[in-house]
Amino acid sequence: MDPLATAPRRPTIRDVATAAGVSRGTVSRVINGGHWVSPTARDAVERAIRSTGYRANQHARSLVTGRSNSLAFLLTEPQHLLFADPTFSILLRGAAEALASRGMTLILLVAGTPEERENVAHYVGARHVDGVLLISSHESDPLLESLQEQGIPLVACGIPMGHARQVPSVSVDEVAGARTMVAHLRRSGRRRIAMITGPLDTPGGRYRLEGYRTELGEDFDERLVAYGDYSAESGAAAISQLLARASDLDAVFAASDVMAAGALAALRRAGRSVPGDVAVGGFDDSGLAATLDPPLTTMHQPFDQISAELVSLLLSVIDGGPQKSVTFPATLVVRESA
Amino acid sequence: MDPLATAPRRPTIRDVATAAGVSRGTVSRVINGGHWVSPTARDAVERAIRSTGYRANQHARSLVTGRSNSLAFLLTEPQHLLFADPTFSILLRGAAEALASRGMTLILLVAGTPEERENVAHYVGARHVDGVLLISSHESDPLLESLQEQGIPLVACGIPMGHARQVPSVSVDEVAGARTMVAHLRRSGRRRIAMITGPLDTPGGRYRLEGYRTELGEDFDERLVAYGDYSAESGAAAISQLLARASDLDAVFAASDVMAAGALAALRRAGRSVPGDVAVGGFDDSGLAATLDPPLTTMHQPFDQISAELVSLLLSVIDGGPQKSVTFPATLVVRESA
Repeated sequence: MDPLATAPRRPTIRDVATAAGVSRGTVSRVINGGHWVSPTARDAVERAIRSTGYRANQHARSLVTGRSNSLAFLLTEPQHLLFADPTFSILLRGAAEALASRGMTLILLVAGTPEERENVAHYVGARHVDGVLLISSHESDPLLESLQEQGIPLVACGIPMGHARQVPSVSVDEVAGARTMVAHLRRSGRRRIAMITGPLDTPGGRYRLEGYRTELGEDFDERLVAYGDYSAESGAAAISQLLARASDLDAVFAASDVMAAGALAALRRAGRSVPGDVAVGGFDDSGLAATLDPPLTTMHQPFDQISAELVSLLLSVIDGGPQKSVTFPATLVVRESA
Repeated sequence: MDPLATAPRRPTIRDVATAAGVSRGTVSRVINGGHWVSPTARDAVERAIRSTGYRANQHARSLVTGRSNSLAFLLTEPQHLLFADPTFSILLRGAAEALASRGMTLILLVAGTPEERENVAHYVGARHVDGVLLISSHESDPLLESLQEQGIPLVACGIPMGHARQVPSVSVDEVAGARTMVAHLRRSGRRRIAMITGPLDTPGGRYRLEGYRTELGEDFDERLVAYGDYSAESGAAAISQLLARASDLDAVFAASDVMAAGALAALRRAGRSVPGDVAVGGFDDSGLAATLDPPLTTMHQPFDQISAELVSLLLSVIDGGPQKSVTFPATLVVRESA
């Protein structure tokens, strides 16, 4: 028996190019950041990388470039939110997979306190990572400013409030998504549509409220707006406030599925049926939505595309590619709650 | 108004020593790893660090030592387990807090696939972290061996199977904890006590089974043992197997609270009341236990002490302190399920 006949040959860049039907140069550009490559070609190459099992030899490359071959997934929220909201774990998984196929490592940094933010700024500033994916940053985040001053390549998930022009981002169209949900609730005959917002110093907080307000136009009534912090508890507390202020509400749009989950529980405790008495719509479609009772109608964010684009865009920025921002549409998923 | 009169003075090591009632040398030894310090003095210093708000100036120090001032929290499990089992987030939080107060950063690395393990070995080998906390490693973990060969300071959470003599660890007394639970179930009159184990290549899997077997002695019956993987689904599947093989079982000891949660749901579906028909005991007491229906009787792991000791021991190993292992007792918490 010839051992060479059975030993698997490590796939090369040539194998990937053949499988994708593109040139080796195109494959190389995708691996090194993906700029100057059409989305179609990039998709084909990424599929071919997976089907062939190709892995870039980044470790040998790092000896030449001095890079760490790692990106940070930086969450500037208290750690418990990382575990409470499934959107973070979905983005983390997607980003980790996008990096692993490139022979790179994703490291998770949680900076929920001023002390942790200062320590993280020093760690990243010492170039232990090649770039940072900013997940859920708040307006005028001092950590973002510190990283910018140090010249760290950055890409934000969601439009970074107060820094929109300087920091490339990947986001959903928050305003249009919120308008779609409100229009759906109106089409089903709802007339007193309340909103539970996220924190107004986050893009999901501010722009989903803007979409709600724009779509309602003259029907906007500020007594129908309550402010949450993306936690289920805040969604439940918002329902108590809203029912006290406007007991005739017949629909609620929550700016996240987790807050919608809290709202559903609070409506049940208040004796309001869903969707009979009150229709409830969410935002995210992170896996939680389908498991709720009743299953939640919500705006779907394309998390797989978002995480792949975050990684691709950051690698491009690191390699000096053009600074740009990418917006994906959110799409309505109708289940039973609205 | 004199601005100096109101500007807060940054606390010094002297303030910590005064608050703790120890010498400055003792404070310094605690900050730099905690070896040659009594547990009592260390506790006093750690309390004083928190109460004074003292922060070591590790960033200046790193310029001298060449260290990264960071430790890795390395999980060699698929990422979804990080989010499914609250024990990981409790340990992560505790370790992050223990480091933040020292001006250091905790980075989270998830290496759930062979590809990710290889990338992590390169990242850690390039000294982007000063040491690694191995969380939940499996027997003969090739990543553990690779890190050992590269001379990376390591401390394991739980006895690392197959490496117990070479790697310092912090763990609960698994065997004694399991014996305590089985003895509790017997004292309450249960005679057919089943067990749902964790994976047998993990210390919680193997040693909790060993304790169960030892405590039962001649009453041990292998038909009463089912094998889980720490997921709730595996706990539920184990109940189906156990009821098919031994429908007369009157108690179940699950090697984790998450598996116990799955077991409770499966018993309910099978029409068995808890604790009326079947008593259920868990292991961990991670916060989930108290929220189950009925609230779960379980073995409490002192996670705060474990995470503080993990950090302290690893910092000591990094500074050339003695290699040692630390074992804490698990304590019985009686609620309603058994």
